Amino acid sequence: MKFKLILAYDGSGYHGWQVQAGDNSVQETLERALGKILSHDVRVTASGRTDTGVHALGQVVSFGTSSSIPAEGLMKALNSLLPPDIRVLQASTAEPDFHARYGAVSKTYLYVIDTEPVMSPFSYRYALHHPGSLDLEAMDRAAGLLLGEHDFRSFMGTGSEVKTTVRRIIVSTVFAKGSKVFFVIQGSGFLRHMVRNIVGTLIQIGEGRIAPGEMTRILELKDRVHAGPTAPPQGLYLVSVEYGGGSNASPEDERGRH
Amino acid sequence: MKFKLILAYDGSGYHGWQVQAGDNSVQETLERALGKILSHDVRVTASGRTDTGVHALGQVVSFGTSSSIPAEGLMKALNSLLPPDIRVLQASTAEPDFHARYGAVSKTYLYVIDTEPVMSPFSYRYALHHPGSLDLEAMDRAAGLLLGEHDFRSFMGTGSEVKTTVRRIIVSTVFAKGSKVFFVIQGSGFLRHMVRNIVGTLIQIGEGRIAPGEMTRILELKDRVHAGPTAPPQGLYLVSVEYGGGSNASPEDERGRH
Repeated sequence: MKFKLILAYDGSGYHGWQVQAGDNSVQETLERALGKILSHDVRVTASGRTDTGVHALGQVVSFGTSSSIPAEGLMKALNSLLPPDIRVLQASTAEPDFHARYGAVSKTYLYVIDTEPVMSPFSYRYALHHPGSLDLEAMDRAAGLLLGEHDFRSFMGTGSEVKTTVRRIIVSTVFAKGSKVFFVIQGSGFLRHMVRNIVGTLIQIGEGRIAPGEMTRILELKDRVHAGPTAPPQGLYLVSVEYGGGSNASPEDERGRH
Repeated sequence: MKFKLILAYDGSGYHGWQVQAGDNSVQETLERALGKILSHDVRVTASGRTDTGVHALGQVVSFGTSSSIPAEGLMKALNSLLPPDIRVLQASTAEPDFHARYGAVSKTYLYVIDTEPVMSPFSYRYALHHPGSLDLEAMDRAAGLLLGEHDFRSFMGTGSEVKTTVRRIIVSTVFAKGSKVFFVIQGSGFLRHMVRNIVGTLIQIGEGRIAPGEMTRILELKDRVHAGPTAPPQGLYLVSVEYGGGSNASPEDERGRH
């Protein structure tokens, strides 16, 4: 039987999603709980990794099991065994060929910047502190230049190996609510540190240090050295993962929702 | 020179406000930072203690120093030395006779209850999880019965010694926003665990287990055994401390603001 889980987690206490020797990961914590409930070793597949300190509002995970536990019972058992900083928001059975990583059509990320003069003691794990004003219009204009299909090599963290650095961006927008600035980006996929490198560049634009139009030039140069610094992980949230086909929606419908 | 500080802190990582041998307290952390900045031992006075896990949005602290550091410089130095879960929101010089505890005319507390079916991994340190609906109207009606001057002995935690258990309540109200339920109470002072014991009782009322009018009867019985259980600390916030006299407002004005 194949299961699909939707997870939210506070990444502050974990060395990222993926199992790493000696370090506390979300994946390991989940697999340990699943092993206890299902009485056999479980290996889960996520839509993708999240780095140390990065949060998830809707990470998607799939795994197979020989157990015939009902989805609702599995969700309750997991939420009582897991630590409170990892929660299962939804559990359901999935088609036998469902794969959380290969089946993903797009992903949506959120980055939160707090511009208060003094950072709230309740926010420092959940946003980047950038006191003082940012030019939101310039940031939003630059964010809009990422829409469509582009080679994102300039925004790829070093040391990653991928077949192609071309990705398609469906949503890319900057807006504010109170003292918080939000960047939402949805795309067909993301390279290593891509969102955080884009945010680092957007902040330079918001500070007036480079013009919004530079975003296009940086894309064209296809070299990491031209983009801004990597924004820190605590402002980043994996919001949701969209799947094509399936029983509920065609890929186009899924995309249309965001 | 006398200083007044307004602090916000996330109580999750501390054994409460007060210095206790071997435990990490907010007071100790603040006094250590002040000692470094002012180059002499500093003992601070807070408006009152907060228990382990209880948060502050506006704790007020006073202390004397022989140093002539400007308030703004002191605030900057403190915020760079203190851990990010303690922030100085305001620093100012105060009248020589200003005393954070004895000068307080009233205090305002907030208690947050999250009624989502699954508790957000970002909220478990900052709210009480109570899945399912609560009768807000009944809770608010019961909260209103606390207004005015009453003997709060029934809501006092055991093991405390006080001269009088009579307190005057100026604001006492329950309301919701989304899936969160808020209880705001402002009073001339609070007994040990008083707010959390009131919340425990309000929840029983919200669950329909006791009638709103029972609140008056519980007050009249003047015995802790009749009130509800002590609600956990993570939902509680010290919002603000109001002072009489001073340069800005008469006591009546101060009270009228909330």
